[in-house]
Amino acid sequence: MAVKQAVKPTRLERQTPVPADIEIAQQAFLKPITELAEELGLQPDEIELYGPYKAKVKLEVLERLRDVPNGKYIDVTAITPTPLGEGKTTTTIGLSQALGAHLGKSVMTCIRQPSQGPTFGIKGGAAGGGYSQVVPMEDFNLHLTGDIHAITAANNLLAAAIDVRMLHESEATDEQLFERLFPKDKQGKRHFAVNMLNRLKKLGIDKTDPDEMTPEERSRFVRLDIDPDSITWRRVIDTSDRFLRGITIGQGPNEKGMERKTGFDITVASEIMAVLALTTSLADMRRRFGEMVIGTNRKGEAINADDLGVAGAMTVLMKDAIKPTLMQTLEGTPVFVHAGPFANIAHGNSSIIADMIGLKLADYVVTESGFGSDMGMEKFFNIKCRYSGLIPNVVVMVATVRALKMHGGGPKVVAGKPLDHAYTNENLELLRAGLGNLLAHIGIARKFGVPVVVAINAFATDTQAELDLIRKVAVEEGGAEDAVICNHWALGGEGAVELARAVVKAAEKPSQFRFLYPLDIPIKEKIEIIAREVYGADGVDYEPLAEQRIAEYTRLGFDRLPICMAKTHLSLSHNAELKGVPKGFRIPVRDIRASVGAGFLYPLLGTMSTMPGLPTRPAFYDVDLDLETGRVIGLF
Amino acid sequence: MAVKQAVKPTRLERQTPVPADIEIAQQAFLKPITELAEELGLQPDEIELYGPYKAKVKLEVLERLRDVPNGKYIDVTAITPTPLGEGKTTTTIGLSQALGAHLGKSVMTCIRQPSQGPTFGIKGGAAGGGYSQVVPMEDFNLHLTGDIHAITAANNLLAAAIDVRMLHESEATDEQLFERLFPKDKQGKRHFAVNMLNRLKKLGIDKTDPDEMTPEERSRFVRLDIDPDSITWRRVIDTSDRFLRGITIGQGPNEKGMERKTGFDITVASEIMAVLALTTSLADMRRRFGEMVIGTNRKGEAINADDLGVAGAMTVLMKDAIKPTLMQTLEGTPVFVHAGPFANIAHGNSSIIADMIGLKLADYVVTESGFGSDMGMEKFFNIKCRYSGLIPNVVVMVATVRALKMHGGGPKVVAGKPLDHAYTNENLELLRAGLGNLLAHIGIARKFGVPVVVAINAFATDTQAELDLIRKVAVEEGGAEDAVICNHWALGGEGAVELARAVVKAAEKPSQFRFLYPLDIPIKEKIEIIAREVYGADGVDYEPLAEQRIAEYTRLGFDRLPICMAKTHLSLSHNAELKGVPKGFRIPVRDIRASVGAGFLYPLLGTMSTMPGLPTRPAFYDVDLDLETGRVIGLF
Repeated sequence: MAVKQAVKPTRLERQTPVPADIEIAQQAFLKPITELAEELGLQPDEIELYGPYKAKVKLEVLERLRDVPNGKYIDVTAITPTPLGEGKTTTTIGLSQALGAHLGKSVMTCIRQPSQGPTFGIKGGAAGGGYSQVVPMEDFNLHLTGDIHAITAANNLLAAAIDVRMLHESEATDEQLFERLFPKDKQGKRHFAVNMLNRLKKLGIDKTDPDEMTPEERSRFVRLDIDPDSITWRRVIDTSDRFLRGITIGQGPNEKGMERKTGFDITVASEIMAVLALTTSLADMRRRFGEMVIGTNRKGEAINADDLGVAGAMTVLMKDAIKPTLMQTLEGTPVFVHAGPFANIAHGNSSIIADMIGLKLADYVVTESGFGSDMGMEKFFNIKCRYSGLIPNVVVMVATVRALKMHGGGPKVVAGKPLDHAYTNENLELLRAGLGNLLAHIGIARKFGVPVVVAINAFATDTQAELDLIRKVAVEEGGAEDAVICNHWALGGEGAVELARAVVKAAEKPSQFRFLYPLDIPIKEKIEIIAREVYGADGVDYEPLAEQRIAEYTRLGFDRLPICMAKTHLSLSHNAELKGVPKGFRIPVRDIRASVGAGFLYPLLGTMSTMPGLPTRPAFYDVDLDLETGRVIGLF
Repeated sequence: MAVKQAVKPTRLERQTPVPADIEIAQQAFLKPITELAEELGLQPDEIELYGPYKAKVKLEVLERLRDVPNGKYIDVTAITPTPLGEGKTTTTIGLSQALGAHLGKSVMTCIRQPSQGPTFGIKGGAAGGGYSQVVPMEDFNLHLTGDIHAITAANNLLAAAIDVRMLHESEATDEQLFERLFPKDKQGKRHFAVNMLNRLKKLGIDKTDPDEMTPEERSRFVRLDIDPDSITWRRVIDTSDRFLRGITIGQGPNEKGMERKTGFDITVASEIMAVLALTTSLADMRRRFGEMVIGTNRKGEAINADDLGVAGAMTVLMKDAIKPTLMQTLEGTPVFVHAGPFANIAHGNSSIIADMIGLKLADYVVTESGFGSDMGMEKFFNIKCRYSGLIPNVVVMVATVRALKMHGGGPKVVAGKPLDHAYTNENLELLRAGLGNLLAHIGIARKFGVPVVVAINAFATDTQAELDLIRKVAVEEGGAEDAVICNHWALGGEGAVELARAVVKAAEKPSQFRFLYPLDIPIKEKIEIIAREVYGADGVDYEPLAEQRIAEYTRLGFDRLPICMAKTHLSLSHNAELKGVPKGFRIPVRDIRASVGAGFLYPLLGTMSTMPGLPTRPAFYDVDLDLETGRVIGLF
């Protein structure tokens, strides 16, 4: 394979004990991002600076590097985690630092941008931790380069367009709507606006002059006749504001009579975020935005953003957000931060575009998918790789002694509460009992034909015997290529050098990647393949609402989309309480929703919260600006 | 006065007839913003790039240039406008281009960032027009450098904090709240978070260890006891979404019983925007955020953002927004774009910080205040200059034949409808009858002791006799220093050279600036001074709600704040229908609100819409991305 240029590593000045994340991050030496871009072989006109340490990379680079062979494509996933998380992001970054700063490899890390909402709620950064972090961490966790804000704007412009259109249609005849939608210019001529053309085409109206439309065509064109009860498009905000989960709108004195119940989701739950993560070009993004379905008309026909004439403006709002943001790790290796869709109602993976550019710029792209292999990784393969056409080479499976003991029957792990002694003292029996979960996850990855390397993220309280037991079982019973003990949180890349070597070796194996299901089978068959093959369920039960949706989506032609299961990440099953390897259960599908623009259907197996709340003492109590130095304090 | 270095002008390649604004803007030659910054004498580490044509300027530059004398400070205002506007922004930019690119002066233009909401609603850019524009206009009108998005985030974090706190207080005893607000650390110790210190001080509790608080102090500290009916803090969104004007929140299944009626304003109506525009430093912004009052407790005591512990996080969210954004005009002169508070419920002026930096970098700072001299200019003087301590040198009063004829009794001017012939044919009688409005506005400016130059913004249909009449009356009857016919829309800076000469001359006069009222008089006296001296009213009438607020604010000590009248801009009076110079009227004050953090009270003289709507055919129908070139089309 082609060897690309590795970047110049930044030397870590480590301290013991390991200081707080923000202290490490603020004391780090950062290269100017222009320097890192140059080391990566990017040309000066291919980047747009956002301050000294962030740059957006233009999509034109894909054209210039069209003939460069892709690097190896590595996905970091995990076993079923505890509510505390098992260090997947930290491992992603530690592995990258090891490859780039210790093995001299050319590497790109591709990770998700976190929602700003939870930043101020319950502590927990998304920039990695310890000596494996993306910096500057304040920028990473706050506005970054404004992509999430752009999504909020685009999402809510569509929402405003829906309600105001219903209001105007309620007050006007077809002829009045025609007059308003096609005002005469100074020469007395009417025009189709650029954003009307896709609707014209959809309705099969072959006219170039609005005045040539027949009265029947006029009526069909001007009246969307949206059924208010069918609307699935919600507003979004990047704040954890639970009081917006369920609201009534239209109660102002001038909107009376048009009240409607709806709600806000957190911005990262927007379909626009899912589109951003799955799109491959500006033209593709424009098309997907137009195809986003917001509900139906009273005849049951799908109404999309192009029907409302707003997809062009949404594309303009998102024209910079489509460019990945380049940042760096603590050891000076490059990171693309781009998109961050929900990992249950969406596919939970960073963007295709960042991966595409990364694979041209580097020999190794390390990316992360959300939650366990049953969640983000399954969607990475069946949805993201399907849309990108990219072939994954290695899966890195993160496991911890703590999570495996929980799967073995250990006491409940609760965020904010001290860990039980079972987790902090050696207990090989408990560990052994939980190893089935690791084996199941390795098995899931292997079903896709991708070699697996297990990364055992070691904690200070783990014993050598415990760590050795995981290694042995993963390789001997699970068929992992290797299983490596890592200490990148405390040591940075140096703590993941063995993992990096194992990954490099596994990546040399020829890929036998395959999807788990084809697209051209019925919706139920696709759901059942995932339920049986991935979750280990005995079958699937559909509630009446789900049956109704399946019939509706099949009628509308959405049955050819891949499936994005909205399931808890805390169990291989749909029931968060079932740890280890649940057996003898059936998956209940409560409802199914469609993200037609993003390109998937998402069956709901439970109630998924799409808007977090704030605790009584939110993390914001600790956050302030040091007015002397201008530095942020108290952020994680 | 000190002579600073003028920047290198960009040559305009003009066409006739004048093309569309977006065409001119997209064909413009732009200097890299690094080059412009260097010409201005900014050091490389004093700017932060946002792409090639925008840069934020750090506040540290104020420290470095502390001893440099300030330039001349010029405010552009207008007579009472028609609903179409009279070209105030275009004049601001044309005058700057004339000063900088034609007279070789060192000049900085300081203007407001427009709300993104209306961009997609009813056409009408805010970047100037014709050959007097700020570029790139797409950036200017869209996300710019994210300041408005930061305001949305900060505003809504506070809103979420209010409702969630009421929920948690409703479910917990004082002791439970104490346990949650002061969790023990690993050593078993409790701590006051950094954002609790201001509340401690306010309550007069002199403890450093939470456990030392008496039970009475604990209760006082942990329970805010917010009266839901007193809450004035609303959520904001930068989208024109009229269905959010009046909403009910808290209807999710887990928030039941805590329903509350509230609403969203457009983001630029947030008090945080008003603070951004009036603050003078990071420390001052932090303090103002903490003092923003969101309502009262059940005892009637004011509750502010510091009581909720959220002002530090809001400051962190706004730490980059406080830096002005440097852009350029079509002729290569520098522009600061910074803040854009509402011109009725707020003071309608760009930021003090941009003006402060501009006055250090340039010999002339040209800034604009919203609406007519009775609105933005009065607030510029009485509020903005009071907080900044800066002394204005010249007022430029924009007048048009069109608006003056309207004031003389011409037919109603309605946006989107063709103009009556009275406006497009010579009619000296109508014009003469309307000149009183110009004289009144000149008189208002002169009451503040500032010399006035009238800028007659000429339209193609104006006749020489009409233009000459305005000149003559403005100087001979109004006492303006000069009155100059301008054609900067068609000609760029060249069309405003005479205006620029007149402004330079007027700026040499010693300033006799004075405020119209002192702060230490009762609220009613301040309102009455503005009503009589500025609006020409016979007096003021207070509705019972206003009387109640006056009593309440006086009790709370907010009566020492300046007054920001929320009045229509379409008349010197409170009644938009009264054109010319209304006489014999009394001002009705319906209600009074407080922006305690921003630092003003705003009496409401009518119903002010704080959330625009969208028409049946919003401007977004025309907006799209040209997928070949990546250029924005259809934006104005």
